[in-house]
Amino acid sequence: MRVLGVDPGLTRCGLGVVDGRARDLRMVAVGVVRTSAQRSPGDRLVYIQDQLDSWVDRFEPDAIALERVYAADHVPTVMTTAQVSGLVLLAGARRGLPVVLHTPTEVKAAVTGSGRADKAQVATMVTRILTLDEAPRPADAADALALAICHQWRGAGQARRELAAAGERARQRAVAAR
Amino acid sequence: MRVLGVDPGLTRCGLGVVDGRARDLRMVAVGVVRTSAQRSPGDRLVYIQDQLDSWVDRFEPDAIALERVYAADHVPTVMTTAQVSGLVLLAGARRGLPVVLHTPTEVKAAVTGSGRADKAQVATMVTRILTLDEAPRPADAADALALAICHQWRGAGQARRELAAAGERARQRAVAAR
Repeated sequence: MRVLGVDPGLTRCGLGVVDGRARDLRMVAVGVVRTSAQRSPGDRLVYIQDQLDSWVDRFEPDAIALERVYAADHVPTVMTTAQVSGLVLLAGARRGLPVVLHTPTEVKAAVTGSGRADKAQVATMVTRILTLDEAPRPADAADALALAICHQWRGAGQARRELAAAGERARQRAVAAR
Repeated sequence: MRVLGVDPGLTRCGLGVVDGRARDLRMVAVGVVRTSAQRSPGDRLVYIQDQLDSWVDRFEPDAIALERVYAADHVPTVMTTAQVSGLVLLAGARRGLPVVLHTPTEVKAAVTGSGRADKAQVATMVTRILTLDEAPRPADAADALALAICHQWRGAGQARRELAAAGERARQRAVAAR
């Protein structure tokens, strides 16, 4: 499975593509789309949408992992981050690609084991998990990769649980049919 | 000048087109785009974007007036409203149309004379200003028309001030050249 992780933002939007399965993951691409505050908000969104489209066309992910942003975060950028998140949801829906939201806590817990890990710890673990020569910079790039890793692992866990549940239901049906 | 007013929202997005100049305004169209909470967020955004595009194509506004939403509003819908606002900014930028943001207070003050007017008062004044037979329903439709009216009037005032300022600069240049 190939996952595009997106750390949404109007000034810096992190993008990272991770391919593989379970413990055997590799980085396909990583980057940050930047837009200048001197351009109009509409022009910045156009640029980000064009970049998103070109990443999806080029890397053909099976799913998009997007950071879930809360209004309660009280960050000044929360509104523009929501706008960029909307573009990601739109890009997925237009192509029939699932877009799955993961909270920052889920992502940190998935890659470091602690939901309260700091950015440096996340970057260190991303570097180890993907066996990179150096940590991806800036932090938004590492965060995008962490999102993609989180989705690979949580998705795999979810699939295992569903498989187990289906197996359990099959056993129960078999018992009931005796 | 023709203005498309947009009261952004994921469940209900009000759209209203107002044509004319200064005190001679008429309604061209009004409507509400609705999406069901049972559909995925991405599918809802796709539908709203398609409807926005079709309104802009059909009514060919000279400008879009969009309600400014603040994160501090603490409304549960603030994030999805920001996403729809992003689509409006994008639609304008993609077509080279100016998108101008007006706060709810500005809009209320423009159409009722009071920034603290309630929804019923806004609807009543929109009905009078556009000489409609009855108040547009639901409130989102009336709010979209109020945004368009606000933009027509504030824009006109702004243009007058700019014209006056340009005249003043011309006079000063003439004086300096004597």
